[in-house]
Parts: sequence; C-alpha cells; structure tokens
Amino acid sequence: MKRIEIKQLLTKPYLEGQVHVAGWIRTARQSSNVGFIELNDGSQFGNLQIVYDKDLSNFDQINKLGLSAAIEVWGEVILTPQMKQPLEIRASEIRVMGDSAKDYPLQKKRHSLEYLRTQLTLRPRTNTFMAVFRVRSILSMAIHRFFQDRDYVYIQTPILTSADAEGAGEMFQVTSLDLNNLPLTESGNVDYSKELFGKKMGLTVSGQLSVEPFALTYSKVYTFGPTFRAENSNTVRHANEFWMIEPEISFCDLDGMMDIIEEMVKYLIDYVLEKAPQEMKFFNDRIDNSLLDRLEVVRSSQFARITYTEAIQLLKDSGRSFEYPPVWGQEIQTEHEKYLAGELFKQPVFVTDYPTDAKAFYMKLSPDGKTVRACDLLVPAIGEIVGGSQREDNYERLKAEMERRGMPIDDYQWYLDLRRYGSAVHSGFGLGFDRMIQYLTGIANIRDVQAYPRTPNNAEF
Amino acid sequence: MKRIEIKQLLTKPYLEGQVHVAGWIRTARQSSNVGFIELNDGSQFGNLQIVYDKDLSNFDQINKLGLSAAIEVWGEVILTPQMKQPLEIRASEIRVMGDSAKDYPLQKKRHSLEYLRTQLTLRPRTNTFMAVFRVRSILSMAIHRFFQDRDYVYIQTPILTSADAEGAGEMFQVTSLDLNNLPLTESGNVDYSKELFGKKMGLTVSGQLSVEPFALTYSKVYTFGPTFRAENSNTVRHANEFWMIEPEISFCDLDGMMDIIEEMVKYLIDYVLEKAPQEMKFFNDRIDNSLLDRLEVVRSSQFARITYTEAIQLLKDSGRSFEYPPVWGQEIQTEHEKYLAGELFKQPVFVTDYPTDAKAFYMKLSPDGKTVRACDLLVPAIGEIVGGSQREDNYERLKAEMERRGMPIDDYQWYLDLRRYGSAVHSGFGLGFDRMIQYLTGIANIRDVQAYPRTPNNAEF
Repeated sequence: MKRIEIKQLLTKPYLEGQVHVAGWIRTARQSSNVGFIELNDGSQFGNLQIVYDKDLSNFDQINKLGLSAAIEVWGEVILTPQMKQPLEIRASEIRVMGDSAKDYPLQKKRHSLEYLRTQLTLRPRTNTFMAVFRVRSILSMAIHRFFQDRDYVYIQTPILTSADAEGAGEMFQVTSLDLNNLPLTESGNVDYSKELFGKKMGLTVSGQLSVEPFALTYSKVYTFGPTFRAENSNTVRHANEFWMIEPEISFCDLDGMMDIIEEMVKYLIDYVLEKAPQEMKFFNDRIDNSLLDRLEVVRSSQFARITYTEAIQLLKDSGRSFEYPPVWGQEIQTEHEKYLAGELFKQPVFVTDYPTDAKAFYMKLSPDGKTVRACDLLVPAIGEIVGGSQREDNYERLKAEMERRGMPIDDYQWYLDLRRYGSAVHSGFGLGFDRMIQYLTGIANIRDVQAYPRTPNNAEF
Repeated sequence: MKRIEIKQLLTKPYLEGQVHVAGWIRTARQSSNVGFIELNDGSQFGNLQIVYDKDLSNFDQINKLGLSAAIEVWGEVILTPQMKQPLEIRASEIRVMGDSAKDYPLQKKRHSLEYLRTQLTLRPRTNTFMAVFRVRSILSMAIHRFFQDRDYVYIQTPILTSADAEGAGEMFQVTSLDLNNLPLTESGNVDYSKELFGKKMGLTVSGQLSVEPFALTYSKVYTFGPTFRAENSNTVRHANEFWMIEPEISFCDLDGMMDIIEEMVKYLIDYVLEKAPQEMKFFNDRIDNSLLDRLEVVRSSQFARITYTEAIQLLKDSGRSFEYPPVWGQEIQTEHEKYLAGELFKQPVFVTDYPTDAKAFYMKLSPDGKTVRACDLLVPAIGEIVGGSQREDNYERLKAEMERRGMPIDDYQWYLDLRRYGSAVHSGFGLGFDRMIQYLTGIANIRDVQAYPRTPNNAEF
C-alpha cells in the first residue's frame, strides 16, 4: 500500500478505508489497553491521531517508544466529526523505523527559545520552529512569484567579490592561503597575488552594484541571496549572514518604486496568510497577539509618504522627549521610526528625500542639492524594513559625488561607465529577508528565524 | 501617457493607437529622410521596430545616437502583417534619456564569447547573454515551483561553516582577522579564538548535512544556494562559486528518489521550453543545433537504470578502447559516461550501487557489503548531471564507516545523533545549477552562464 502524506489525509474530501502513513511521534499517551499517538510527518503543521490497542502484536513495544520516534502505521480512517480533529487512524499495524533514545533533548514541556538555540538540529521538530521555517520557505516563494509573475529577471550576483558595495569596511575576507604560512611580498606584507583569484577577496555586503548592469538590460531584475557583514553587533536584529532581496528597475523613478514596494509588501503578507494559515494563527496565539491585527492594517492601508524634512518637523512638533532629539541632518533613530509609524500614522510610512550625507554615494541628487531621492519604509512596531533610492544616472554628478567622498574612481569606472553607455532613470531597493520573517511571525530574535544563525561567537554546525 | 513594455506590445491582441515605450537601441539604420531603430527594453528577447522621419524635430540628433543609447518613444502602432515583425511604431516624438559614447565596446558585429567575457557588465545586452540570463532566471523559478508545488520546504543552509561536508579539503577560509597583523597563540600559530566567530570558519561546499535535520522534520526539503570549492581547476565545467540544489526526502529510498529526479528533470525542461521559446530557438539556431532534439529525447524517454557493476560489464563488452579501461572499483570516467548515455542507451541512464570506496561516508551500505545505494544520472552529450544516494540511517553502521575512514567522530556527533532520535529511511541528491543551465542552453563554458564567473585568477567586479 502506498504511503499517504498526513496533509492529504487531513484535506477534504476525507479518504476512507485503509491507509498507510509514516512520521514522528509528537506526543503519546497510553493505558494498559489502548494508546494514542500524535503523529507528524512535516507535510503540515497539525498532527494526525493514531489509536492502537492490545490487538497489536507489538503493543508493548509501541507503548515504550520515545518522543520523536519514527514509525510507519497501517490502519483504517475513522471520521470523528464530533472531535476537534476531523479523523483518526485506528492502527492495525505499527512498525518502528527508528526509536528515539532516552536522552532525546526535547521533552513534552515547553522549552525556552534560548534553550532551543542550543539544539539547532532538533528545534525544527517543535511547533514554533516548524512554523517559522515553513513560513520562511513560503515567503521565499512569495518573493520569487511576485517578481517572476511581473517578468523580473532573477540575477544571482556573486558572493565572492573584491568590491565593497557600501564602502562600510565590514567585509569578511576570503582566502585560499594558509594563514600559518602566508606568502609575503618583498616589503613583508601578505602577497595576495598568490591567492587562487590572484588578489584580495571578500564576501559581498550587497548585490546592488553588480545587478545594476542587468537592470540596464532587462529593465526589471532582482537578486535574492546571502549577504554578509563582519560587524560585532549583538542585537536581536543583526546577524553576520543574512539573505537580501535587491530589486532594480529601469525607467522607474522614486515614486514609481514606492508603488512597487507597497504592492510587494501587501502581496507578501497576503501570500503568507493564504498559504500558512495554521502557522500564522499559531504565531498570533503564542508569539504575538497583535500580529494578525498589525498585518491587517498594513494590507488595508494606503502607505503614507512624507519627506525626511517633514518627518523631522513632525518629531519636533510631537512634544515627546526622545533620547536623540530630532535634528535636520541627523539620522532618524529607531525611537523616531516607532513614533512616526506606530503612534502618529499608525500605519506604514515612506520617509523620502534624506540629507545627502546620510546616504550612500549612488543616490540621485535632488535639484535642491541637499537631499537625495531615497526612501525608507517604516512599519509600526518594527521601524524600517525596506530602504531604497533612485540612482544617480548622470555621469558627471555621480563622479563628482564619488570624488567628494574620496572614493577610488578607478575601481568603479565600470559602474560610472553605465552612465555613459545608455544611461536610464533607474531605482532599486533592499529588503532584509530575515527581518521580514521576524515581522511576519512576531519572532523577536533574528537567531530564531535562521536555520543556523551566524552571530558573533556563535556559528554552530 | 503611461509607458508600456515591449513584451506587452508584441503580445496578441495587439494594441492600436498611440503608445509610449522606452528601451535601448540594439541596431539602427538611417537614410537622409527616414530612420529605423530596433529597440529592446529587456521585457522580451525580440526587438521592437521604430520608424521615424524628418518630421521629427530632433531627426539629426536621433540619427547620430550610438549603439545602446537609451531613448523614450511616443508614436502610433502600425500593424505590419506582411512583415517578419507583426507591428512597428511610427514615432511622433523621441527623447534621448542617455546616449552611448563612441567607445562603447560592443559593436554591431558578432563578438566572440571570449571577448565578451572581458565585458561582463555589458555582455547581457547581446542576444546570447540576454537569452542565457533569462533562462537562468526561468530555470531558478522552475526549480522553486517544482518543489514548492509538491510541498517541499526550502531551507537556506548557511554559507559560513566550520564543517567540511565532503571532507575534500577544498574549502575557502573566511576570516575577520587582519592578515598583515594576525593574532598568534603562545605556540606561534594563528589564534582563531580571536575570530569574530571565535573559531576557524570556511565557505560551505554542500548544504546536505545541514539540511538533513530538516528532512527528518518536514520529510521533504530542498536547498538552493551558492556553494564554493577552492580548487585550482581550469575546465569548462568548474567554477569556484556555483549554485546547487540539494533536495532531501524522508520515507524515500533510492528507487523512490530516482522517480523524483526523473520527474524533476523532465519538468525543468518542459518549463523552460514553455517559458522561453524564443531563447531556446535561438540557442538551437546559434549555439547547438542538436539542442532541441536532445531535450526532446530526454522529455519523452523513460530513463534507464543499471547498476555500476552492469555498467562496467557493458563498457567491457563494448569493444571500445577507452583511455581508462573499465575496471570494477575504478571511477566511471567522462568517456565512459558519454558512451553509456550517448551511444549505447541514447537516452538518460541512472547508474546505481557504486563501490563503497568510490563514494562519500554517509551513503547507505547495501547488504552485499561492497556497494552503496548511490545513483548518478548520466545524460547524452554531457555525462553526469545529478548525483545522489539513500543515506545510511543505521547509527552503528554509519559510525563504523566514519571510523573506518578516520573521520573525527566528535565533530559529527550531531549528525550521528539524527540516527538515534527517530531515524528514518531518507535519500537526497545534488543538482549543479550552472551545469544544468549549460545543459539546457548548449553553452559550452560555465563562465558564460554565470553573471560574474569566479574561476582561478578570474574574479572581476
């Protein structure tokens, strides 16, 4: 008899008759005559109830199985419309595929997220993490569908790079050399010409610059891949390895891009709510009771748009005493973001047109000469989740700005040249994938939305 | 007037009346009275013909534009059913967004793939590379759709790792230390406790071991991400950075997995042929005339399945003189693969049950004690494109094999423990994404299917 997945068994119209299932024991309780097993095969969030009794030849063996043992079950579907679950299986045969040892580190009681971080290979078997990583998968698909359905071309930009896109100096170095036996130049420095690539290399901090040439070919492109920062930040929002989505769109200015960002954010929420209703209900019940209400506000609101200058004025007019008093030219802090989106607007807000010196070199200079056509999207309870800008498409202005910042022009000549060979208005943004999962699940710590989080002094497996 | 994409304009039913388009000039020809521009905005493979004449106020400016200049066009749709293209635009206005300088490195003539490798930021504007990178994007989506439609969970395994999954010793090292000022221990070696992660780290060579815990939770999972090998191989099939797909499936043995692989390969071919018909025709016309026939054979055949032992016998019986004579226990070479799939079977062939010592430690030992339940999929003209195996799910046998190979058991105790906490039959395989694109496009060199290829002494941008 062919095995059937529990998801299919629990989907209407319900099958009747004999079935064959397999999975891992989530919970079990026994008496001397009858036993109940909650079985999960990962095909869906909920479990399947298995009932067995003394007619089973190996009744005693089954009664002694440990939590998370793997079993195969043959039996009859019994519809139970009067119960919480729609059906159960009355087992005629149970075979043990793999028992679970007595020292299995997860027990029936609720474990703290901190403890579960010490059990990265087993925590996916808990309700919380089974829900988190399924939502992570579904959100990945939502992102690809959103962009592919709209004919964006997915570009895999390189992880290994010699360019520091943000100029932030927070790149990990990658080497093929033996650190205990480094080749040296005559002057006594490391001889990078001996590297496999013949030069010093690092891990990308952003695919944006690499993807712009493709935007100036296909018009609409996006990246979706891992990025890295070698920063020693121990916060709930920072990891040293994280995934980013970086769309880049030609013939599109800042206003057009904000339309796209708004459409995307709403699409992602809708998609996850539709594809993972059990998981989202679980998060709302167990992790953050305001989650579904919060997402509903985002889905149904038209995002506000204010300039940075207006934002500073609103903060000044708020009568609040902030830890960092709002000053034109200074950064908008998390406390400011939370006030604007969470308290004043109570919905998502785009803040646009930041002071030039607060943003990166490649952003489109406004006619006022003091601001650039950048935007950050702030959402209630979290703050910034998306940042982007129209790009400077004028060769002379871009070069002047790079010189003003003391950048090595030669290294970026290829990037400047894109403004000499058919330059076009174009804009792009970045969405931190892991933070978006935090936002959609209510999970507070980025360590709990990554399979194997990489944070300072913490990189297991 | 809202801009319309060329793809939409060239899709039936054709719009009539006034339209607004934008794009880059692919080719242009002029006389003193009239000019023709082939315009491409990247929304589809083919170009849109723009016709303009002396009525245009900037007729002379337009006539002088360089190849790849970016323009906006307003004009009327003229249906041209008697021509090759279904319609053209008679321009009433053309605005120059960005001209292209005289030193633009791509000219109208056909450039060699080798030359274009020196122009990585511009080569996507050629027909060949525009087709390659769109197929790359479409194939990525095909992979996600295949697995997500079947309820697989996408797991992003970490890039930064301290584990060497293949034990091949070809890992790049990643460091946060200053190589010109390394901290040393008392014994004079590099003090890795000073690393950001507190230990020596590298770039992953495979996500397989990291994803197995998730297969033992969700049953069906897959990875899709970059992997790295620090090997000094200069071949048309090796790159130091490449993307891999690694599905892992519980309650599935080798035979069941071969069914999945066969279904997947056919699905990927169907998907790309359906979504990129213009590109695939181009590859067949310009790159490899046997491409479409070859793919058709794969789509319509039932893949053969032979054991390694049978394969060696077939090679011995072939009467061929191979450079490497076939010997049981030795590797099946590329020449052997090409004979088996390309000449003998003339269709895809699974070769199964390899000698234990030819394969990795984690593969399921057969009852004969000499072979493991592994499979490679060989396809005509290429050889191996997929490799996989059923995994050893017995704790004692796995541990004994690891000890026999002299592996450090402590480092893998978490992996062994998966066989103590609800072990289940499971199998997995790896598909090299870049090689699959080579296979689907006929492009011979892996450097021509990656946006920015990373190969020895070659890592630009």
